[in-house]
Amino acid sequence: MEKWIITREGYEPEEYTDNGNRFLIGNGLIGVRGTLEEYTADKMVAINLAGIYDKAPGQTWREPINAPNAFFAKLENQSSILSHKQSLNIAFGLHSRETDYENATLRIERFCSMAEPNILCQKISITPKGKPVTLICGIDSEIWDINGTHLTDFKTSVTDTLRVSALTSEQRIPITVTERCNRTADEVREIRSSLFRVFNVKEKLVLERIIAINSELTPGSYDEKLSAHKKIWERLWENSEVKIKGDDKAALSLRYSLYHLHSIAPRHADSLSIPARGLSGQTYKGAIFWDTEVFLMPFFTLTEPAVARKFIKYRINTLGGAREKAAEYGFDGAFFAWESQDGGVDGCTDFNVVDVFTNRPVRTYFRDKQIHISGDIVYALGKYIDWTGDKNILENGGDELIRACADFYRSRAYSRPGSDKLEFTDVVGPDEYHERVYNNAFTNRIAAYALEKAGYDCKVREPIFKDGIVEQFDGYFNLEDVSLAEVRSRLKHPREYWGTQSGVAFSTQIIKQADVIALMHLFQDDFTDDIVKNNWEYYEPRTEHGSSLSACMYALTACRFGKPDLAYPLFMKSARSDLDGGGKSWAGNVYIGGTHPAAAGGAYMIATQGFAGLSLQDGQPVLKPSLPEQIESIKFPLIFRGKHMHVNVTHDKAEITQN
Amino acid sequence: MEKWIITREGYEPEEYTDNGNRFLIGNGLIGVRGTLEEYTADKMVAINLAGIYDKAPGQTWREPINAPNAFFAKLENQSSILSHKQSLNIAFGLHSRETDYENATLRIERFCSMAEPNILCQKISITPKGKPVTLICGIDSEIWDINGTHLTDFKTSVTDTLRVSALTSEQRIPITVTERCNRTADEVREIRSSLFRVFNVKEKLVLERIIAINSELTPGSYDEKLSAHKKIWERLWENSEVKIKGDDKAALSLRYSLYHLHSIAPRHADSLSIPARGLSGQTYKGAIFWDTEVFLMPFFTLTEPAVARKFIKYRINTLGGAREKAAEYGFDGAFFAWESQDGGVDGCTDFNVVDVFTNRPVRTYFRDKQIHISGDIVYALGKYIDWTGDKNILENGGDELIRACADFYRSRAYSRPGSDKLEFTDVVGPDEYHERVYNNAFTNRIAAYALEKAGYDCKVREPIFKDGIVEQFDGYFNLEDVSLAEVRSRLKHPREYWGTQSGVAFSTQIIKQADVIALMHLFQDDFTDDIVKNNWEYYEPRTEHGSSLSACMYALTACRFGKPDLAYPLFMKSARSDLDGGGKSWAGNVYIGGTHPAAAGGAYMIATQGFAGLSLQDGQPVLKPSLPEQIESIKFPLIFRGKHMHVNVTHDKAEITQN
Repeated sequence: MEKWIITREGYEPEEYTDNGNRFLIGNGLIGVRGTLEEYTADKMVAINLAGIYDKAPGQTWREPINAPNAFFAKLENQSSILSHKQSLNIAFGLHSRETDYENATLRIERFCSMAEPNILCQKISITPKGKPVTLICGIDSEIWDINGTHLTDFKTSVTDTLRVSALTSEQRIPITVTERCNRTADEVREIRSSLFRVFNVKEKLVLERIIAINSELTPGSYDEKLSAHKKIWERLWENSEVKIKGDDKAALSLRYSLYHLHSIAPRHADSLSIPARGLSGQTYKGAIFWDTEVFLMPFFTLTEPAVARKFIKYRINTLGGAREKAAEYGFDGAFFAWESQDGGVDGCTDFNVVDVFTNRPVRTYFRDKQIHISGDIVYALGKYIDWTGDKNILENGGDELIRACADFYRSRAYSRPGSDKLEFTDVVGPDEYHERVYNNAFTNRIAAYALEKAGYDCKVREPIFKDGIVEQFDGYFNLEDVSLAEVRSRLKHPREYWGTQSGVAFSTQIIKQADVIALMHLFQDDFTDDIVKNNWEYYEPRTEHGSSLSACMYALTACRFGKPDLAYPLFMKSARSDLDGGGKSWAGNVYIGGTHPAAAGGAYMIATQGFAGLSLQDGQPVLKPSLPEQIESIKFPLIFRGKHMHVNVTHDKAEITQN
Repeated sequence: MEKWIITREGYEPEEYTDNGNRFLIGNGLIGVRGTLEEYTADKMVAINLAGIYDKAPGQTWREPINAPNAFFAKLENQSSILSHKQSLNIAFGLHSRETDYENATLRIERFCSMAEPNILCQKISITPKGKPVTLICGIDSEIWDINGTHLTDFKTSVTDTLRVSALTSEQRIPITVTERCNRTADEVREIRSSLFRVFNVKEKLVLERIIAINSELTPGSYDEKLSAHKKIWERLWENSEVKIKGDDKAALSLRYSLYHLHSIAPRHADSLSIPARGLSGQTYKGAIFWDTEVFLMPFFTLTEPAVARKFIKYRINTLGGAREKAAEYGFDGAFFAWESQDGGVDGCTDFNVVDVFTNRPVRTYFRDKQIHISGDIVYALGKYIDWTGDKNILENGGDELIRACADFYRSRAYSRPGSDKLEFTDVVGPDEYHERVYNNAFTNRIAAYALEKAGYDCKVREPIFKDGIVEQFDGYFNLEDVSLAEVRSRLKHPREYWGTQSGVAFSTQIIKQADVIALMHLFQDDFTDDIVKNNWEYYEPRTEHGSSLSACMYALTACRFGKPDLAYPLFMKSARSDLDGGGKSWAGNVYIGGTHPAAAGGAYMIATQGFAGLSLQDGQPVLKPSLPEQIESIKFPLIFRGKHMHVNVTHDKAEITQN
């Protein structure tokens, strides 16, 4: 059972950032950062709500809302800590902490109910060691906000329950938090819109608190709710657990990744997607990126296609925003948001980077030139149908989406006089360090895919090869060919941005992340293994891997040409991204950290499509294993066109069986 | 006669930069900065040679060569200066200085012979006031070089003449300086490749020195050479003098401008052009810019068409370089150099700006995207033929040039699917603060001109009007509309560059220089006076005038819509650019100063095409005067299709008469 539990021993107050991500729990509607119960706004406590976006006063963009923290609990007059342990049971998303103070022992567990997505549950157990102690718990309204206070017009009510309600500042969306406790408090304190129960504890006391966010409380005890919660988790694992034998660390790391994906899947909604930083806060405006389509879809398509369908429906339902964006730039069809918020509004600004030398916002081209996003969505839809057979979605908006994306590309394209080839000028590919390039191979191919799916008779300029290497974009090979170390040594400030016209990478062949290599994974049939290998060897040393989306693509392609040993460390890096923490969390004084769902989804892709070599051939799943030495076998279930199947891959055999 | 003499009284050693430009003399082959005779390398002394480019050791680009300074002269053990006067007679390019020291009076005059372009002449007169003094004069080899030492392998020879010769460091081009003096020195000193005559002077001594650069000395005395020199200047003025009545300051300023243009015109060569900073040093690599075609051609076309023809021949003879540049970028035809050096090699680098915050070179797009240059050249050729009738040049390379430029544009263009309109994507127009724009109105029009001249059946996308204002490029009106003062206030460093992605102007409507307004002057027939006025009023407050090419275009168009009062200060600014000095001379520690021939040529354009309103209509010169109040009349000669004509414009009448 140990392999299902993540633990940190010892109290390290400075680790609140990484622990907040590492120990996150959630149920798709609500994400709760893994901060300790006594923490407040300054330690980035967040009860993050999926799909609710609003502007703080004076803010020019929307971002997600955090609810008042009903998990707040604290031993008043805390004495010295003798021992401390924080842990997370990833089998069913149960967060625990146990702290031995000089004067009392405090143990708290909590979970976000998978059975009732609006319900959070907490059990507090406190045992004084002699003198009585005072325990305070309740709803703390001093909550973390990165860019200004979102909630306003607070109201409180105290009956047998505590209730704090507020409105969001822009759209005045009501946010309510209601709590009931199995024990009557000695006192209820109201401090600036926060409500706390106060218990004078003389002997061991166990509190069970049931919390409802934006709904009424439901009946049932803590244990009853935990039991219903566990049942759902059991079913989730049944359909998704990847069993890795021979490498416990890899096994746990991957299991942790899948735990995280399950915790943030929007099962409660008909049409919703997953933000780039999941439900771990307001970073990146809580927006939906291409991460969902390229890095999250495979996991959900194979294990829980109903969730994958919600991602597609989200895009179909935000076609309006995508059409408006295309029109804004003078194009036809649908140009999806680079950072999609409700209604498909693009949260991405034209100035997405701040110059560390001048502290001035710098014009970037993520919003207006990263046009591969529309094709990424068509691609995800296509693959979703290939695997699930759910053609019904085409009639329900899918066909319209494909046509709209193809219309966008057709109107965005140019041709040279006398040629019928469409070219995509002035784009940004996955490698954002090189803005405004021509005929980015990735972008051209994904646009061609969309045009082809729409049945349009268009030819798109093919990639240019030089000595077997695909040129990432026109003129890439003319850029300075210099080592990553050399480029890094040119930095004059540790946090300066590598891209834009004056950045260190811009005029060199150093790229941010997989670009040609991402192309070679997504369009496997276009390239022979030899070509993939040559390109890997060319581009990998030139890649900074400055994005969590990069490692996965390099790992997948390395498996393909028979080098799983090259893939293995990239797999571990992807799978352990949030477990290990320590990644880039701050850009200047802006928090850009949080969890990395795309890396988690990427880890699943490496295990299944890379190590097990799963793909579709002639419409049927096939295996071409490429197992690293450390791993004896990989087994996992999958759903193919409604049929439950099981993959079993060892170094000697590879089989797909139908249940 | 006073109105022909420029004078500065008092010794101001710090003014050596401005005075070097202000008092420049030249004959087209040689330019001599207006520095004092005792100055040496650190005071930017230069005997600048037209058309010879070479690299200093380790330099990655070529720049012009300065010859050893044979005008060097110095009173040894200089005592205090009692009075000092430096002056320039612009009637025939005679530079004089007179300095009254405590112990002697020194008077020196010098000129660059217009009759014999390789010959320089100097007359030194020294009068001791009591005790004998020592005068040293000779050939000083310690010469000014901005970016490293160009001359090497020095040799000296002393016979009845002094001779210093050297080789350029890259191409080993021989540079020789030979001097004879009418008096025998008491001593000849050789100090590190420099040769000096030393005179112990007891009573008034007059030395006459004749110097030959890169040729043998020719016979003749100082006075004989001066007389031949003056004769040529007389003829030049006869064909070019613009007489402004009622405003002596304006008259002198314009005369000074024309003096400068005459001094740098390459009469000695069959095919040569004028660098952006004339013959005043190595700034901007001594390269030829579009300045020649747009700002210098009108003066020479009307007053000395043989020189204008040399400019065109220079472009015809550098077609090879332009073809190579086009091929380098994958295009057909001729893409002329942005900074043209010998053979048409582009001296412009991809990194033409240094970031003041990081001291790193920044990628700029002047070289690869400022494609209007090829059209500017076709335009100049077209106007040259319109005025001179010299169709013969078409058979001598002109037709080939036009076709090559049109081929370039055709291959550089794109069309949207289903449209036959050519668009020019990703260009830089005259306003360099906005790089990589689409359908810059100026660029599209000048490209259309070239295509039309070549007889190609192409349509180019027309400019977009909004409320009567031409949009400078697609999307310009969406940029932040903010005042020039506001943008200036955002600067964080006095020398930071306004353009590039992270510069203060880039995302605003603030532009560097006339762009739409330049278009409206060059293509007068495309726009009504009302439209010109509206556009002037829109763009002028949004123009930084960060280039000396800007004022002229605004002045010309203001005259057109009947506001010469708006034009007048811009005229004075253009005409007095080098007289007043004080302009931007340094960018970081790089000298970017020097003379401004384009501003001088612009002053001529304003006086003739603006104030006098000269243009061609139905192939005949016509006048539409727009005289400022201050000016009573303007008279000037011109040559139209070989016929000498005379313009006379007052507030009451305007006439063109044939001689």
